[in-house]
Amino acid sequence: MAKIIHSMIRVLDEQRSVDFYKTALGLDVVDRYPFDGFTLVYLRNAENAMELELTVNHDRTEPYVLGDGYGHLAVTVQDLVAEHARMDAAGIAPLAIKEFFREGSLMARFFFIQDPDGYKTEILQHHGRFV
Amino acid sequence: MAKIIHSMIRVLDEQRSVDFYKTALGLDVVDRYPFDGFTLVYLRNAENAMELELTVNHDRTEPYVLGDGYGHLAVTVQDLVAEHARMDAAGIAPLAIKEFFREGSLMARFFFIQDPDGYKTEILQHHGRFV
Repeated sequence: MAKIIHSMIRVLDEQRSVDFYKTALGLDVVDRYPFDGFTLVYLRNAENAMELELTVNHDRTEPYVLGDGYGHLAVTVQDLVAEHARMDAAGIAPLAIKEFFREGSLMARFFFIQDPDGYKTEILQHHGRFV
Repeated sequence: MAKIIHSMIRVLDEQRSVDFYKTALGLDVVDRYPFDGFTLVYLRNAENAMELELTVNHDRTEPYVLGDGYGHLAVTVQDLVAEHARMDAAGIAPLAIKEFFREGSLMARFFFIQDPDGYKTEILQHHGRFV
Protein backbone atom coordinates (compact mmCIF):
# COMPACT_ATOMS: atom_id res chain seq x y z
CA MET A 1 0.00 0.00 0.00
CA ALA A 2 1.16 3.53 -0.72
CA LYS A 3 2.64 5.66 2.06
CA ILE A 4 2.77 9.42 1.47
CA ILE A 5 6.32 10.65 2.22
CA HIS A 6 6.70 14.10 0.74
CA SER A 7 5.22 16.97 -1.23
CA MET A 8 7.42 18.69 -3.80
CA ILE A 9 7.39 22.36 -4.78
CA ARG A 10 9.76 24.26 -7.06
CA VAL A 11 11.27 27.38 -5.54
CA LEU A 12 13.49 30.14 -6.93
CA ASP A 13 15.84 30.84 -4.03
CA GLU A 14 16.95 27.94 -1.86
CA GLN A 15 18.14 29.90 1.16
CA ARG A 16 15.13 32.17 1.18
CA SER A 17 12.78 29.18 1.24
CA VAL A 18 14.83 27.24 3.78
CA ASP A 19 14.82 30.27 6.08
CA PHE A 20 11.07 30.76 5.65
CA TYR A 21 10.11 27.18 6.48
CA LYS A 22 12.52 27.07 9.42
CA THR A 23 11.04 30.23 10.89
CA ALA A 24 7.42 29.48 10.07
CA LEU A 25 7.17 25.73 10.69
CA GLY A 26 10.41 24.74 12.40
CA LEU A 27 11.43 22.57 9.43
CA ASP A 28 15.12 21.70 9.17
CA VAL A 29 17.18 20.64 6.17
CA VAL A 30 17.61 16.92 6.72
CA ASP A 31 19.12 16.17 3.31
CA ARG A 32 20.42 18.28 0.46
CA TYR A 33 21.49 16.90 -2.91
CA PRO A 34 23.09 19.20 -5.48
CA PHE A 35 23.01 17.90 -9.07
CA ASP A 36 23.93 19.44 -12.38
CA GLY A 37 21.25 22.01 -12.99
CA PHE A 38 19.18 21.52 -9.86
CA THR A 39 19.30 20.89 -6.12
CA LEU A 40 16.90 18.82 -4.03
CA VAL A 41 16.33 19.82 -0.41
CA TYR A 42 14.31 17.79 2.10
CA LEU A 43 12.75 19.60 5.06
CA ARG A 44 11.32 18.02 8.16
CA ASN A 45 10.78 18.58 11.89
CA ALA A 46 10.37 16.22 14.83
CA GLU A 47 6.57 16.15 14.43
CA ASN A 48 6.71 14.73 10.93
CA ALA A 49 7.82 11.72 8.98
CA MET A 50 6.25 13.61 6.08
CA GLU A 51 8.71 15.95 4.34
CA LEU A 52 8.57 19.04 2.18
CA GLU A 53 10.85 18.62 -0.85
CA LEU A 54 12.18 21.76 -2.49
CA THR A 55 13.41 21.58 -6.07
CA VAL A 56 15.72 24.47 -6.97
CA ASN A 57 16.36 24.73 -10.72
CA HIS A 58 19.61 26.68 -10.90
CA ASP A 59 18.88 28.54 -14.14
CA ARG A 60 15.34 29.51 -13.31
CA THR A 61 14.85 33.21 -12.73
CA GLU A 62 11.23 33.97 -13.63
CA PRO A 63 8.62 33.28 -10.94
CA TYR A 64 6.87 29.95 -11.10
CA VAL A 65 3.28 29.93 -12.27
CA LEU A 66 1.26 28.63 -9.34
CA GLY A 67 -2.11 28.38 -11.10
CA ASP A 68 -5.40 27.84 -9.28
CA GLY A 69 -5.41 24.07 -8.83
CA TYR A 70 -2.96 23.19 -6.11
CA GLY A 71 -4.12 24.50 -2.75
CA HIS A 72 -1.76 24.15 0.18
CA LEU A 73 -0.08 22.00 2.76
CA ALA A 74 -1.86 22.03 6.11
CA VAL A 75 -0.26 21.73 9.52
CA THR A 76 -1.66 21.63 13.03
CA VAL A 77 -0.25 23.47 16.02
CA GLN A 78 -1.12 23.23 19.71
CA ASP A 79 -1.64 26.96 20.27
CA LEU A 80 -2.85 28.82 17.21
CA VAL A 81 -2.97 32.27 18.79
CA ALA A 82 0.57 31.98 20.12
CA GLU A 83 1.83 30.71 16.76
CA HIS A 84 0.11 33.58 14.97
CA ALA A 85 1.76 36.11 17.28
CA ARG A 86 5.14 34.41 16.97
CA MET A 87 5.00 34.36 13.16
CA ASP A 88 3.80 37.94 13.05
CA ALA A 89 6.75 39.06 15.18
CA ALA A 90 9.11 37.00 13.01
CA GLY A 91 8.02 38.76 9.80
CA ILE A 92 6.10 35.83 8.30
CA ALA A 93 3.02 38.07 7.82
CA PRO A 94 0.30 35.57 8.71
CA LEU A 95 -3.22 36.38 7.52
CA ALA A 96 -6.00 36.82 10.07
CA ILE A 97 -7.22 33.91 12.17
CA LYS A 98 -10.53 32.57 10.88
CA GLU A 99 -13.11 30.13 12.18
CA PHE A 100 -15.08 27.70 10.10
CA PHE A 101 -18.34 26.25 11.42
CA ARG A 102 -20.28 23.23 10.28
CA GLU A 103 -23.75 22.37 11.60
CA GLY A 104 -23.30 24.89 14.42
CA SER A 105 -20.00 23.46 15.69
CA LEU A 106 -16.51 24.77 15.26
CA MET A 107 -14.85 22.66 12.59
CA ALA A 108 -11.60 24.55 12.18
CA ARG A 109 -9.75 27.57 13.52
CA PHE A 110 -6.89 28.53 11.23
CA PHE A 111 -4.83 31.09 9.38
CA PHE A 112 -2.82 31.05 6.18
CA ILE A 113 0.76 32.00 5.45
CA GLN A 114 2.40 32.42 2.07
CA ASP A 115 6.00 31.45 1.33
CA PRO A 116 8.43 33.58 -0.75
CA ASP A 117 7.29 31.90 -4.00
CA GLY A 118 3.62 32.29 -3.12
CA TYR A 119 2.80 28.76 -1.94
CA LYS A 120 0.30 28.71 0.88
CA THR A 121 0.34 26.80 4.15
CA GLU A 122 -2.74 26.48 6.33
CA ILE A 123 -1.98 26.58 10.05
CA LEU A 124 -4.76 24.83 11.97
CA GLN A 125 -5.48 24.74 15.68
CA HIS A 126 -5.16 21.15 16.94
CA HIS A 127 -8.92 20.47 17.20
CA GLY A 128 -11.54 17.95 16.13
CA ARG A 129 -10.40 15.97 13.10
CA PHE A 130 -7.34 18.17 12.58
CA VAL A 131 -4.84 16.55 14.92
CA MET B 1 5.74 22.61 16.49
CA ALA B 2 3.93 22.20 13.20
CA LYS B 3 2.73 18.76 12.13
CA ILE B 4 1.91 18.31 8.45
CA ILE B 5 -1.54 16.70 8.16
CA HIS B 6 -2.76 17.12 4.61
CA SER B 7 -2.18 18.45 1.12
CA MET B 8 -5.10 20.08 -0.68
CA ILE B 9 -5.84 20.04 -4.40
CA ARG B 10 -8.88 21.33 -6.26
CA VAL B 11 -10.52 18.81 -8.57
CA LEU B 12 -13.37 19.06 -11.05
CA ASP B 13 -15.16 15.75 -10.58
CA GLU B 14 -15.35 14.30 -7.08
CA GLN B 15 -16.22 10.71 -7.99
CA ARG B 16 -13.63 10.54 -10.77
CA SER B 17 -10.87 11.65 -8.38
CA VAL B 18 -12.04 9.44 -5.52
CA ASP B 19 -12.05 6.45 -7.86
CA PHE B 20 -8.59 7.29 -9.19
CA TYR B 21 -6.94 7.64 -5.77
CA LYS B 22 -8.66 4.49 -4.50
CA THR B 23 -7.43 2.46 -7.47
CA ALA B 24 -3.97 4.00 -7.67
CA LEU B 25 -3.02 4.47 -4.01
CA GLY B 26 -5.65 2.60 -2.01
CA LEU B 27 -6.90 5.84 -0.44
CA ASP B 28 -10.39 5.75 1.06
CA VAL B 29 -12.82 8.56 1.78
CA VAL B 30 -12.55 8.97 5.54
CA ASP B 31 -14.58 12.18 5.75
CA ARG B 32 -16.74 14.13 3.36
CA TYR B 33 -18.23 17.54 4.09
CA PRO B 34 -20.66 19.11 1.61
CA PHE B 35 -21.11 22.87 2.00
CA ASP B 36 -22.92 25.48 -0.07
CA GLY B 37 -20.83 25.79 -3.19
CA PHE B 38 -18.12 23.26 -2.41
CA THR B 39 -17.40 19.85 -0.90
CA LEU B 40 -14.32 18.80 1.08
CA VAL B 41 -13.21 15.17 0.85
CA TYR B 42 -10.43 13.66 2.97
CA LEU B 43 -8.61 10.60 1.62
CA ARG B 44 -6.33 8.28 3.57
CA ASN B 45 -5.16 4.69 3.79
CA ALA B 46 -3.81 2.58 6.64
CA GLU B 47 -0.21 3.58 5.85
CA ASN B 48 -0.82 7.26 6.42
CA ALA B 49 -1.82 9.75 9.04
CA MET B 50 -1.19 12.26 6.25
CA GLU B 51 -4.26 12.88 4.10
CA LEU B 52 -5.06 14.13 0.64
CA GLU B 53 -7.80 16.77 0.78
CA LEU B 54 -9.92 17.30 -2.32
CA THR B 55 -11.79 20.55 -2.74
CA VAL B 56 -14.66 20.27 -5.22
CA ASN B 57 -16.07 23.66 -6.22
CA HIS B 58 -19.56 22.81 -7.46
CA ASP B 59 -19.83 25.50 -10.13
CA ARG B 60 -16.35 25.00 -11.58
CA THR B 61 -16.34 23.54 -15.05
CA GLU B 62 -13.13 24.75 -16.72
CA PRO B 63 -9.97 22.77 -15.98
CA TYR B 64 -7.79 24.10 -13.19
CA VAL B 65 -4.53 25.79 -14.18
CA LEU B 66 -1.78 23.64 -12.68
CA GLY B 67 1.15 25.92 -13.53
CA ASP B 68 4.78 24.85 -13.25
CA GLY B 69 5.47 25.42 -9.57
CA TYR B 70 3.79 22.68 -7.60
CA GLY B 71 5.37 19.32 -8.30
CA HIS B 72 3.75 16.27 -6.79
CA LEU B 73 2.98 14.14 -3.79
CA ALA B 74 5.36 11.22 -3.41
CA VAL B 75 4.54 7.81 -1.98
CA THR B 76 6.63 4.71 -1.34
CA VAL B 77 5.58 1.16 -2.11
CA GLN B 78 7.19 -2.16 -1.19
CA ASP B 79 7.23 -3.60 -4.73
CA LEU B 80 7.49 -1.00 -7.45
CA VAL B 81 7.39 -3.41 -10.40
CA ALA B 82 4.29 -5.15 -9.08
CA GLU B 83 2.59 -1.81 -8.41
CA HIS B 84 3.43 -0.61 -11.90
CA ALA B 85 1.92 -3.74 -13.44
CA ARG B 86 -1.15 -3.52 -11.21
CA MET B 87 -1.77 0.15 -12.07
CA ASP B 88 -1.19 -0.53 -15.74
CA ALA B 89 -3.79 -3.31 -15.71
CA ALA B 90 -6.19 -1.05 -13.78
CA GLY B 91 -6.05 1.68 -16.43
CA ILE B 92 -4.03 4.20 -14.39
CA ALA B 93 -1.52 4.55 -17.27
CA PRO B 94 1.70 4.78 -15.22
CA LEU B 95 4.73 6.24 -16.99
CA ALA B 96 7.86 4.12 -17.38
CA ILE B 97 9.92 3.09 -14.37
CA LYS B 98 13.07 5.20 -14.07
CA GLU B 99 16.21 5.01 -11.96
CA PHE B 100 18.08 7.96 -10.53
CA PHE B 101 21.73 7.57 -9.53
CA ARG B 102 23.84 9.79 -7.28
CA GLU B 103 27.60 9.30 -6.86
CA GLY B 104 27.31 5.88 -8.50
CA SER B 105 24.62 4.53 -6.18
CA LEU B 106 20.95 4.06 -6.82
CA MET B 107 19.14 6.91 -5.11
CA ALA B 108 15.62 6.28 -6.35
CA ARG B 109 13.62 3.93 -8.53
CA PHE B 110 10.24 5.41 -9.39
CA PHE B 111 7.49 6.14 -11.84
CA PHE B 112 4.90 8.88 -12.15
CA ILE B 113 1.15 8.76 -12.50
CA GLN B 114 -1.21 11.60 -13.36
CA ASP B 115 -4.67 12.01 -11.90
CA PRO B 116 -7.77 13.04 -13.90
CA ASP B 117 -7.07 16.76 -13.32
CA GLY B 118 -3.40 16.39 -14.22
CA TYR B 119 -1.81 16.35 -10.75
CA LYS B 120 1.19 14.05 -10.55
CA THR B 121 2.10 11.46 -7.95
CA GLU B 122 5.57 9.95 -7.76
CA ILE B 123 5.58 6.28 -6.83
CA LEU B 124 8.92 5.33 -5.27
CA GLN B 125 10.38 1.94 -4.46
CA HIS B 126 10.88 1.64 -0.68
CA HIS B 127 14.66 2.18 -0.75
CA GLY B 128 17.38 4.29 0.85
CA ARG B 129 15.97 7.51 2.30
CA PHE B 130 12.57 6.95 0.68
CA VAL B 131 10.86 4.80 3.27
